[in-house]
Order: sequence, then structure tokens, then C-alpha cells
Amino acid sequence: MKPIRDPIHGFIELNEWEQDIINHPLFQRLRRIRQLAWTDMVYPGALHTRFEHSLGVMHVATRMFKNVRLGSEDILKNDLNYTDGGLDRVLALIRISCLLHDIGHGPFSHAAEELMPISENTGKPYDHESYSAEAVTLMEDIINHRTNERNYGITTQDIKEFLNGEVPDEGSLLWRRLLSSQLDADRVDYLLRDSHHIGVAYGRYDLDRLVSTLTVAIDPETDAPVLAIEEGGLHAAEGFILARYMMFTQVYFHKTRRAYDFHFSEAMRSLLDEEPYLKGQMKGRFPAPNNIASLKAYFQWTDWRVLGLLEQGKGGYHGEIIRRRKHFKKVYATKEVPDKDDLERAEEVCQHLGDKVGFVDRAEQSWYKFLDKDIPVLQGTKNTRQFLTPLSKLSSVVNGLKSVNQIRIYVSEENRKEAEKIIEALPGRGKGA
Amino acid sequence: MKPIRDPIHGFIELNEWEQDIINHPLFQRLRRIRQLAWTDMVYPGALHTRFEHSLGVMHVATRMFKNVRLGSEDILKNDLNYTDGGLDRVLALIRISCLLHDIGHGPFSHAAEELMPISENTGKPYDHESYSAEAVTLMEDIINHRTNERNYGITTQDIKEFLNGEVPDEGSLLWRRLLSSQLDADRVDYLLRDSHHIGVAYGRYDLDRLVSTLTVAIDPETDAPVLAIEEGGLHAAEGFILARYMMFTQVYFHKTRRAYDFHFSEAMRSLLDEEPYLKGQMKGRFPAPNNIASLKAYFQWTDWRVLGLLEQGKGGYHGEIIRRRKHFKKVYATKEVPDKDDLERAEEVCQHLGDKVGFVDRAEQSWYKFLDKDIPVLQGTKNTRQFLTPLSKLSSVVNGLKSVNQIRIYVSEENRKEAEKIIEALPGRGKGA
Amino acid sequence: MKPIRDPIHGFIELNEWEQDIINHPLFQRLRRIRQLAWTDMVYPGALHTRFEHSLGVMHVATRMFKNVRLGSEDILKNDLNYTDGGLDRVLALIRISCLLHDIGHGPFSHAAEELMPISENTGKPYDHESYSAEAVTLMEDIINHRTNERNYGITTQDIKEFLNGEVPDEGSLLWRRLLSSQLDADRVDYLLRDSHHIGVAYGRYDLDRLVSTLTVAIDPETDAPVLAIEEGGLHAAEGFILARYMMFTQVYFHKTRRAYDFHFSEAMRSLLDEEPYLKGQMKGRFPAPNNIASLKAYFQWTDWRVLGLLEQGKGGYHGEIIRRRKHFKKVYATKEVPDKDDLERAEEVCQHLGDKVGFVDRAEQSWYKFLDKDIPVLQGTKNTRQFLTPLSKLSSVVNGLKSVNQIRIYVSEENRKEAEKIIEALPGRGKGA
Amino acid sequence: MKPIRDPIHGFIELNEWEQDIINHPLFQRLRRIRQLAWTDMVYPGALHTRFEHSLGVMHVATRMFKNVRLGSEDILKNDLNYTDGGLDRVLALIRISCLLHDIGHGPFSHAAEELMPISENTGKPYDHESYSAEAVTLMEDIINHRTNERNYGITTQDIKEFLNGEVPDEGSLLWRRLLSSQLDADRVDYLLRDSHHIGVAYGRYDLDRLVSTLTVAIDPETDAPVLAIEEGGLHAAEGFILARYMMFTQVYFHKTRRAYDFHFSEAMRSLLDEEPYLKGQMKGRFPAPNNIASLKAYFQWTDWRVLGLLEQGKGGYHGEIIRRRKHFKKVYATKEVPDKDDLERAEEVCQHLGDKVGFVDRAEQSWYKFLDKDIPVLQGTKNTRQFLTPLSKLSSVVNGLKSVNQIRIYVSEENRKEAEKIIEALPGRGKGA
Repeated sequence: MKPIRDPIHGFIELNEWEQDIINHPLFQRLRRIRQLAWTDMVYPGALHTRFEHSLGVMHVATRMFKNVRLGSEDILKNDLNYTDGGLDRVLALIRISCLLHDIGHGPFSHAAEELMPISENTGKPYDHESYSAEAVTLMEDIINHRTNERNYGITTQDIKEFLNGEVPDEGSLLWRRLLSSQLDADRVDYLLRDSHHIGVAYGRYDLDRLVSTLTVAIDPETDAPVLAIEEGGLHAAEGFILARYMMFTQVYFHKTRRAYDFHFSEAMRSLLDEEPYLKGQMKGRFPAPNNIASLKAYFQWTDWRVLGLLEQGKGGYHGEIIRRRKHFKKVYATKEVPDKDDLERAEEVCQHLGDKVGFVDRAEQSWYKFLDKDIPVLQGTKNTRQFLTPLSKLSSVVNGLKSVNQIRIYVSEENRKEAEKIIEALPGRGKGA
Repeated sequence: MKPIRDPIHGFIELNEWEQDIINHPLFQRLRRIRQLAWTDMVYPGALHTRFEHSLGVMHVATRMFKNVRLGSEDILKNDLNYTDGGLDRVLALIRISCLLHDIGHGPFSHAAEELMPISENTGKPYDHESYSAEAVTLMEDIINHRTNERNYGITTQDIKEFLNGEVPDEGSLLWRRLLSSQLDADRVDYLLRDSHHIGVAYGRYDLDRLVSTLTVAIDPETDAPVLAIEEGGLHAAEGFILARYMMFTQVYFHKTRRAYDFHFSEAMRSLLDEEPYLKGQMKGRFPAPNNIASLKAYFQWTDWRVLGLLEQGKGGYHGEIIRRRKHFKKVYATKEVPDKDDLERAEEVCQHLGDKVGFVDRAEQSWYKFLDKDIPVLQGTKNTRQFLTPLSKLSSVVNGLKSVNQIRIYVSEENRKEAEKIIEALPGRGKGA
Repeated sequence: MKPIRDPIHGFIELNEWEQDIINHPLFQRLRRIRQLAWTDMVYPGALHTRFEHSLGVMHVATRMFKNVRLGSEDILKNDLNYTDGGLDRVLALIRISCLLHDIGHGPFSHAAEELMPISENTGKPYDHESYSAEAVTLMEDIINHRTNERNYGITTQDIKEFLNGEVPDEGSLLWRRLLSSQLDADRVDYLLRDSHHIGVAYGRYDLDRLVSTLTVAIDPETDAPVLAIEEGGLHAAEGFILARYMMFTQVYFHKTRRAYDFHFSEAMRSLLDEEPYLKGQMKGRFPAPNNIASLKAYFQWTDWRVLGLLEQGKGGYHGEIIRRRKHFKKVYATKEVPDKDDLERAEEVCQHLGDKVGFVDRAEQSWYKFLDKDIPVLQGTKNTRQFLTPLSKLSSVVNGLKSVNQIRIYVSEENRKEAEKIIEALPGRGKGA
Repeated sequence: MKPIRDPIHGFIELNEWEQDIINHPLFQRLRRIRQLAWTDMVYPGALHTRFEHSLGVMHVATRMFKNVRLGSEDILKNDLNYTDGGLDRVLALIRISCLLHDIGHGPFSHAAEELMPISENTGKPYDHESYSAEAVTLMEDIINHRTNERNYGITTQDIKEFLNGEVPDEGSLLWRRLLSSQLDADRVDYLLRDSHHIGVAYGRYDLDRLVSTLTVAIDPETDAPVLAIEEGGLHAAEGFILARYMMFTQVYFHKTRRAYDFHFSEAMRSLLDEEPYLKGQMKGRFPAPNNIASLKAYFQWTDWRVLGLLEQGKGGYHGEIIRRRKHFKKVYATKEVPDKDDLERAEEVCQHLGDKVGFVDRAEQSWYKFLDKDIPVLQGTKNTRQFLTPLSKLSSVVNGLKSVNQIRIYVSEENRKEAEKIIEALPGRGKGA
């Protein structure tokens, strides 16, 4: 198979096993799921899909793994007891898992997650990762039973565990971080990709240096292996964190994009209502990933189907808003990092607007996880002693970075003028930030 | 209104009049028409739409016009009798016309043109330009009757004439070439844009130099004004022609892309069959642009609608091929510039394959117009005498460029092996190029 | 004259007056002054000169001015009483001043500033700006006396004042900030240019948005006009500040680059010693800009002359180090933002190393001005009230940014091993950051 | 050692052996030899050196070799009898040879070649390759005698043979083509690099595809192995040839750049005259590479030394022209591809101008080798039969490409007006192209 041309990474190579996965309808379905939902309403170029992103994640994770393997062979072999064959298997598992990590996405990616059903086991809504992990079971025939090739005995069960994070040992936990952590191939890819298609430089950072300074270290406190950045990559890691911040404020949390996330979610709810429900399916929610029929029904939802239904005039009030591009407008917003006063003030504005409020958007719901963890930086040299320091201790910029917890209040086009008048009339600081 | 961010040209500015046009549903519909049809099957990044391209054409045409105005003021004012106000009006007309030149496109752009109905007047099929010109009449309310602003008295009639090329005078003919000629803003934009989203360098050329050497000259043979390139831009013009050639061979005429053009056209025919026909609508063809009801029905066809129908399982045999991505495969091709022997040989292969032939693709149908006209180069200096020479006389590369007239024979996946066997068994040169 | 091709901004246009300035030997001399001194020892691509940078600054300042003029016409005309002609003159003055702002640089740009003589008037060393301002007087013949063209009566005196910041009125002060402020065309250009030639993305930011949100506002506290960023450009301004930070840590303050700054300064001192001194010239210092003979002698120092002398074997011990590329090595460094303990520790290390210390580099000397001023952001809308807020109040990232005050201790290759042993042997925290 | 950051290829990795070579004074000398001589007089960004280019060639050749090894393992092992160890050695030799292939360049690269001495053996002037090959002998201590590492027994003799093309067998001949052929790593690198620093797109082509379609084939006519391009890379190869053509016309053969090549050559002749001659050194020529003393004297000539001498006022009439940037101007030129009439006409103009002619530049001297050889394209598939076809048979563009044989006549600034008058007065076609 010819390598696939990618606008970010050049050519991406695939072996035969991976090609079969690419050709599977569930993977091809990713061609019908836009990466950035309705962001094209703001940045017309933002039409790329999860298909190219998934290839990119696999490619980047491979580069990261190879660099780690090259630079940390001693730790991998001596501390973690890997053989060369074992490491080859790890890479194969990482690649497949990266390819498949997003196949569970619903139409318009994250925008669909509002409508995920509640899991009976956990009492919480499913997320797209749950669907991805379950979807893997639908691919058993091309994953498990391959007689002619060396697939290292990797099974759908291995991949599900990798995707779920229910990995059997420390080593696996380490590798899972290549797919999901503060510094994972997922983010590494999408920041660059989204920037490219939109035509902005916000998400660019020093990929080459980041990859080349990625390493494995043993955390002295837990004795567990961790992915870390060598000291020489400190500023590359800083640049990566800043790229995430810039893309969040300029793209992912753009006020108009967020309005369409809302409109889509509401329109999608109508679309679900307009179709017959499966037995057991919750009202206004997607089918759950708890049995095969339901899973298959879920996967029939794609951007294409939604676009077709919207074009037929379906989707209710919000469907019409999307078609006519008359989105709700922001009439009030707190500062990006609001203090208590700001928050109270926003509350007050909401109360005065009453039923004129279209919806209220809270940044923390999408972004608040940002500062949970930190990137460990490996200091010292191999000859002397080495130790890990969190990036935020070494970088005043990263340390200064606060969660964006902005609250925005939107109203419909019809209510706009009146809402603005009400806000103007409020005593105190007027229009917010 | 804030300028629109464009990945190719940076910010694109619009005045209020233009914004109203952008906001019109017929223009917003361009967000639902992909520029490159199904090219994403080969190059996953190729998902951009006619919406961003149309803005780009307007922007580039403006740059071209401004450069010409700056450098050729004497000709424009003395030979063509333009006033400053007249030139301002010309620019306004060019901008609106560029914005609107593609609104007539059917779903998946050119791929739909196979299914255009026959015009009773001409006996030939309509093209997307005819629809564009007629569509303008649906926008009269925002174009003709604007009291508060200076729109220079431009009417939908003016725009239609500009789009149709039925321009009233030599000056207008000149300006129309900014939109449609060997060196027009349309091509200037799409080569760069398509390259960018795909991630290839094939379509890049020296835009800055091309624009800065564009000029107006009086053709001594006809005494008419023509757009020409100053001699200093000769190699930039050459580079532009070569970019077109490279993009044609590598992207627009890519063998897999062409297969999907075929499959889409056939699937679209089925989709038309599956919907009720309008009175007077030809079977298997789109509604004609000859009355308002029919025009409106035509415009309800968008990529979104088609994607939705395909996702529902419609579109017949070829719809299924698109969904399953099991496209017909090329089993035989002539050289790109075939000689008589090659052509006969292809004919012979066709005959032997008989009903195994899926379809035959002929490059000349999309590309043969390439060499019709030439770019005039202005030689000499203002002080002495000036004369126009066609680029192909000055450039051995352009002169050597032959029309790509390749013929390719495709068969279905099922027939592939047998077809290859038949071809192998033929006496003579075997597999073609 | 043909426009000049620039790798950052495309074509840069010049009028005849400006072309004459470009062609003046003092401006051509900038072709012989590298922008980044010896940074090519780390990043081989860093060989670009002040010549292209100066053109770039002129170009960017023009874009900034034009955007401000377009968006703030009312303030400029009503509050600041500018006429259209007056604004045209301002632009002409800005352009010439930007062109000339760096002509005072000595060989290897900033690296030469250590050897500037002491001014008798101020008791402090001259800086390159003083030389630039004086150099303008050497260009009177092409600046002041131009009969055939409209140069708006601009004289060398006007330019000197602009460069010195001794501007006659508030308006001029405003425009001077386009050349010298937190957000000036100088930085705007060099961040992009240095990034490009080096091949890193650190210095990239959203130039288009930055320029398009630049505006003039009246500061309510002082009633004076200020350059500000509209609220929509807040994150572009943030990105610009971050680009400066990243370029500082990764390029301008790179540990090896700083070593060569030191070696060059020492070698240059030897070169000055090896040449006959002018009457009045301080030992080991460049000729002062206090009389024409001295100024002319100063301008004979260029990179070319220095390179030629170094190649002849001159420049003493440090010249030899440069030739052999055996630079001093960093053996100890504090954290980038050191606390009191760190600083004391560095002091202690110095004392123990004694005469083994090659030199001590203190970041604050080049960078500490960074946080002095702030970028004002214009909030609110024209209809309601508007107010200025410093960027650092609105951006937690900018607010968190601390001055890099790192101290680094370097030793010669010969002393390296022993120095490392001494440092290892010190009780306490060992090797620093 | 840390990898070196390169603006074209990202990070370039080096092993210890290669690092020692990089650190050798003869290699560091390449930092003082500009890649494009005085091209910065036209494109100010063109200041990069042979140092970064040499690293780039090594890097690209490695990519090419690795791709060939991967795709043609069967031919390499079965037809050419290579073992894995043998191929590792080949790569090591290719890398070192690429690194060193340009160390023989004189000041300002090709511009110095006019002044190469005549070889007693061949009766023809030496070229820079001869110097490169001899220079290797000066590096014996770091190349031949390395006990602790695996350098595969590679000696300076092996490298000399590789550089000279006096290779012992067919296999070596094959690999030498990676460094020197129609499609070699040298050109592959410099087209991209020169484009980047200048800021033009002329030299860009599809590097990834070119590398990935490079292969080894057995030429059926000679039974010898050749480097070829797979059919899928046909248009990438075409793009590469066109990039060379565009860079030639726009950069390497730019009329002003060529003037400085001439002025430099003349000034350099004066500089040689102003220095004491070595025994045996030809007047007005560089020292020959025929003994060590002479070779060492040659290598003392660098851009730095020349720039220093020019800045001191040396270099005669042409040195002054360079300093004052008053280059000779083109007053007459034939078409790029002149016919017999054009050539006669140019001759006639020369005669009429008499001693007013500054110099005559003939493109063929630099470029005519362009069309000598051709790139073989591998057609057919492995299963059936394969055959080689020259690219020019498959590509009408490449086939149409004619040698640029333009002749240009230059005169000095002082003679310009009169020369133009003389040419105007000539009967017939006037000013040429």
C-alpha cells in the first residue's frame, strides 16, 4: 500500500494489518466525523476529519516511542525487563490503539457528548472512549485471527484495555500515556493539524525538539516509570502548553464556535426524537454501547446523516438556526479568569435576563482538566544523580497559567437588543469583560 | 464585520454590501459544496469548500485590479477613458462577481456537471456558470435596492452579464478576464488553496510576483486592451502554468479521484431517480435554470443532502461503492500524451474487455482547454516601443507542454483479475503505460 | 525600482527617496552587520543582516500605521487635529526613521555594545541609537534637499528627534512607539525573521491579527493618545509577548550564543588595541559619535573588517577561541528565575572557582527591561464607554511571566574538568539547575 | 552531541565520528563560504553557507539510501551481493563523502572557480571537487585511525575515490550517483535551502515523494544497477527538474547576480595579485592542490578574508564596484533560447559597442550540462516485466525544456547611456529580448 499523504507529517506509512483496519467501515466512518464540529462557521478551513487525525496520532506516537526506546534502552531493558521482541509488540499495540482511539466519536465529535446516555454501571454518562473501546469488539475478525502475519498475538481485549486505561502492569500504564496524558500524541497532533487547516499559527510548537527530548525515567517517589522531558526540552514543553492555551482561547472556546456547539446539541436532540427509538434507548440520547445492536445503531450516526437531515429541514428550532446561521449572541461575559465578584455578577445578570437567556456557557466544563497534572522534567545527568521536577516549578509561564473559567451568557437574535438594554440598566460595572 | 480568516491570504476584508451577500442563503450554501468533490478519498485533507474559495477569488482579483490600476493608470484613463469613480465602480463589480461566480455549482462541484440538463436554446447542456448567472436574480433584494450606501448603481443585470461574458464594451471584457482567462483569479486562488489543504507543494507559484507584474496593454493588432504580464514576470507566469500542470496530473486527474467522479455521477443519477421529478425536469438530470421553481429546486441539492441520502443507503450500486470505498480500478492506461498507436491500442483493449469495462476516462474532456489561449507578455520599455509576445514563444517549457490526453480503462473490483488476464494475453506491448 | 523580495513579508515597496537612502553607503553597510551576531555557531542559518531587518521594520510600521489611520480616523482628526496631509507626512517620517533606526549598530550588532565609549555629557556609555541619530547628519544631502519631490519638508533634524525620542509633541510620541515600545515594529519584525532563518517556530505569532487590532485610544488618566490593542486582539498580543519570551530563552539567551557574545567582545577589544587609536578615542572602546571624523571611523567597523582581521589571526586569545570554535562552557547555572538562595549559591560557586571562572553571564542585563511596561488593551465599545486595561491584568500568562534573571558561570575548556570537580565537591545542592 | 537544527530538514543527527569531522577546521571553514556568493545583492536573505548545505546533503543522501535499501533489498543482496554489514558500510561512506564533498570550495563558492589554476596533468583547470578530494588527506588523523569505534575500515583513500568518481566497482558507482547525478542529494538539498533563505517558492518540489519512489533497478541494456524513479514518482521527478529550471532562471542566472559573479572574479584576481605568490603559483590564480603547502595556502582563502580585504579598500576597480554597489548593467540580451539570428545579432551588438562592453555573459557556461543526462523511470510491476524509460520520453514538459543559452551584454554605469544609444541606432530589431 502506498503511504498516505498527510498535510502535517508528510507521508504516513502503514503495514498490512493497519491497512485492513483503515479499510474497515468503522474506521472509514471517521471520514464522516469532523474534528472541530462547527468551527468552520468561524474559520472556514476547519473541515478536516477524525480520519486524518487518527492517522496522525498513530504516526506521532510512533515517533515518540522510537525516540524513547532509543534513548532509554537501559531503563526499558534493565528496570522494566523488556526484550526487543517485547518492545516491538508494544509499538504494534500503541499504533493500533492510537488508530482506534477516536472511532467511538459521535457526529461532530465532542459536540455530541452532551447527549451520551447514562451508564447503568457507573451512573454517569458514557463518553466517546467507552464507545471506542466497545467498537473494537466489532473488529475481531481483522484483529484477532491473522494467521499469515506477525501481529504479536495482540487481541481486541488488549486494545480495549489499552483504550480504557485498565492496563495490566506499570509498563503498559507508561505507554498508555503516549495516548492520554498532559503530553500525548493526541494533543501533539491536533494542535498542529487544527492550526494548519484553519490557517493560524496559534497551535504551532517545536515538535521535533519535543519528540527528541521525550524520555523514560524512574520516579524516585513511586519507583514507577514515567514519561518525562529532558531538561533541554523544557522550553519546548512550555511552548506546547502555551500552544494548547492559545488554541483553547482562540479556537476551541471561540464564542461563536461555542454557540454552535450548543445549537448542534439541541438540534441533535430533536433529530434523535424524530427517529424511532431503539428498545432501551434513553429519550434524547444516543444508543448506549452496552449491546451490539445498540452499538451498531450508534455508529449509524455520522455527520453525513445529520447534515442530510438538517438539509431536509429537520432538527427543530436549533436546526433552523444552524441552517440560517443566525446563532445566539454573547451579551455578557466574565473575565477569562473570574474572581468571586465576577461570578456573582454573572449570576445576577442571568437572573435579570430571566427567560431571555438563550444559554450559559461555562469554560470550565471543557477545559478545567487542563491544570490537573503536570509534565515531569528530568534534571541532572546520567553520570550524577537525576531527579524529576514538575514543569510548573521550572516555568513561571506555566505556573502563571490559570484555568479559563469564563462564563458567557448568550441570547437569541430576537432578544438581543432588549437583553443589552437590561444589562446596561444594571447598576455597577456594566458590560463585563 | 470582522475580516474573515483565510488560510491562504490571511485576513479577507468585506464591506457591508458584500457581507449581506455572504450572509445570503445561496452564498452560505457554498459551505455545503466541496471544492474538490471526493478528492479526500486520496488526500484526506481535501475537504474545503467553495465558500472559502469564493472569498479567495474576490480577494485575489482585488489585488490584481489594484496593481493594474496603479501601474497602468495612463492607459486606463487616456486610452480607455476611465475616471477614478469609474474605476471604483469596476472594482466593486469585479468583487461581487467573483464572490458569486461559483454559486451555481451543484453538489460536489464539477462532478455534478455530467448531469446538467440540456438547454432548449442552445441544444447543449447547461454549465454551472449558467446557474450562477441565473441565481443572481434571486438576490435582487440585497443587490439592487440599497438606498443608504454607494453601490455605484450596480444591478443584478450587470453581474449576470459579467458572469456570462456578455459584457457591453471592451473595458468590461478586459476586467472579465480577471475572473476567467488563462491567468484569472479563479485559478490563482484554487491552486494555492488546494495545495494547502492537501499538503502538497505542487500548486505553489510566485503569487506576489505574478500580481505585481500584471498590467494592461493595448494589443497593437486589435487595438483592444488586454491583460498582460510584464517581461519581469515571465518566469512567474511560467511557474503558474507549471503549477496548473502539476496539480492536474497529481490531483485533479488522479486516477482514484477520477474513479470517484464517475461513481458519484452514477450515484447522483440514482438519487435524482429516487426523488420525485419536477414538471419538465429531464430524467437523470438536475432541474434546469430556466424558471424560478426549477432553479430553487436545483439549489436544494447540496453535498449535505447527498451525503445524507448516501448514508441512508440510497444511490444504487455506485452509492454502495462510495460507502464501501471499493472503487473501480484502472487496468489499462495510455501514455499521458498518447500517439495514434496508443489510442488504437486502448481501443483494442476496450473491445477485448467487452462488458468487463467499468468505464473509460478521457483526460481531454477535463483538460483540453488548457492550451487554447496563451498569456501575453509585454516586452520593451515605456520609453521605446512595446509589443506583446505570447508566453509560449518565450518559454520552451510552456511551449513543450502538451495536452494530457491520457485514456484510462477501469473495471470493477470483481472483474479486475480477469481483466488483467485478458490484457496480459493480448499480443504486443502488454500493459500500456 | 523593483520592489525588494523579503522572505518574511513578500515584496517590500520603496519610493525614490527611500531608494536613495537604501543606496547610501551607510545603509548598504548594514549588509555587513549580522542581525544575530554569532548565533550561527548554534543555529547555522542565522546569518541574516540588519539590512533586511531594517526594510522589514519599515514595512511593518507602515502596515501598523495604515491600520491605525483607517480605524481611528476620528481620534486622529478630531482629538489630535491631524489633516490628511499631516498624516501622509507622519507616515513618510515613520518610514524613513524605521529604515535608519539601526544604522548606528557596530559590528555584530548588540555584541559590540559592551565596547561603546562613555559620553561626556551623560557619563554613561553611548548606545547604538546614539550612533544612528548622529549618522543621519551624514545623509543630509539626500534627505534635506530634494527639490523635485514631495518629501513633506522632512529634515535630518526631524529624523534625529524621532530616533532619539526627543519628539516635539504628543502626536509624535505616539508614532515613535511604532518604532520603540512593548509592541513595536522592530520586535514585530525580528521575531519572525530570526525564527525563519533559524528554522524554528518559537518566534511566530499572529501578525495579521496583531496589526489589524492595533488602534489609537485616548488614555483617560493622562488625556494623551496611546497605541493600544483592541480587546479582540488580546490573545494575539499575548502570543506576541510569549514569542518574545520563547525566542529569548531559546535563541537570544542560548548558553552557547552568550559565550560567543563574550568571546567576541573580548576579541573586539583586542582588535581595537591592535589598530591605531584616533585622538580622543578611549582605549578598548569604539570611536565616539561626538564628531564627524570619529563617527566616520566608527562606521568603518563592520563584520567584514572584523572577520578579515580574525582570519588574519588577530583578536588575541578570544579571537583564537572563535576561530577554533572552542568556546567557554557553562559549568553552573541558577534557575531561570532564581530566588535569593540560588543567587547566594551562585556567588559561593564563583568564589570557590576563583580564577578558574571564565566569565559570569547575567540574563537580567539583556532582558530585564522586558516587564517594565505593559501593552494597553482597549475594552468596551465605541457606543458605550471605553477604557484601557494593561494586558497583564487580563492575561494570567503574561501576568505570570517573570523576568529571566538566570546567572551562568562559564569556564574555559582547559579548566572545565577541574571546575566541575570543585562544584561537585561543594556541600549542598550540587550542580544547580 | 545534540542534533543540529536545520531550517530545511529539522534536526540532523551525527555520530561521534561525524562530529569530529564537523569540528575539524577545514569543515568549520565552510561557515565562511557563502552558498550563493553575492546573490544577497539581489535577495538579501541569501547569506547561508556551505556549512549548513553540507549537513543537509548528508541528511538527504541518508534518507535516499535508506529508502532504496528498504525497497530494493532483493536486488542489493541477490544481484549486487551486498550483506547487511556491507550496506551499513556503504551508508557510512556515503555520509562522510557527502559531508566533505564541498570542503574544496574557494571563497564565494562557484564564483571563485574562474581563477582555478591549470592542472599539469590534465591541462585543464582544477575544479573545487579536486580540492575537496585532496583536502581529505589533511584529515587522516580523524578519519583513518579510530580504534574505539566501528568505522568499517573506511579510509581517506576510499573517500577520495568516492569524491573523484574513481570508484572500484559498479556498486560504488551506483552510490556515487546519490552525490552526483541528475537526481542527487546535492541538488535535492540546495534547491530547497536556497528557496527558503531567499523566500521564494521556485525551488520547492515534492521531496517526500521523490525520496520514497527512488529505487535501484538493473538496466537491461548494460546489466548495471542504476538509480531510478518508480513510475509513481514520475511527476515528482518532473517537479524536481522544473524546480531546477525555475531556480536557474530566477536566481542562479539572475542578471544582477551574474554581474557580481563577474565583479567578484575580477576583484579576486586583484586580491591574489596584492598578496605574495607562493612558489609555483600561477599569476592571478589560486594555489593548486598539488602539494600540501599549496593546499593549505588555498584554504586560507575564505569569504571572511576576502571581505576584510575588500573593506580595507583592496580589490581594485571591481572591488570598488562591489563596495559601492555600482554593478555593470545589462544593455542587451538574446532570448533565453536563442536561434542563430539572435546569436549573430548579439555578436553584431558587441562589435558596435567595441571597448564599451563591460563583459559578456553566456548562460551555457553554467547551465548547458543540464540536459546531458536523463532520469530513468522504472515502469511495469515486479510481477510482470520491468523496464527503464528516460523521463524525457514520458514527460512533454521535460522534453520541451531547452538549454538556456542566453547571451547578455553588460556595460559599466558610465558607459550605459552611450551604449544604449548605440544599440538603439542599430538597424533591425532594436533591443533584443
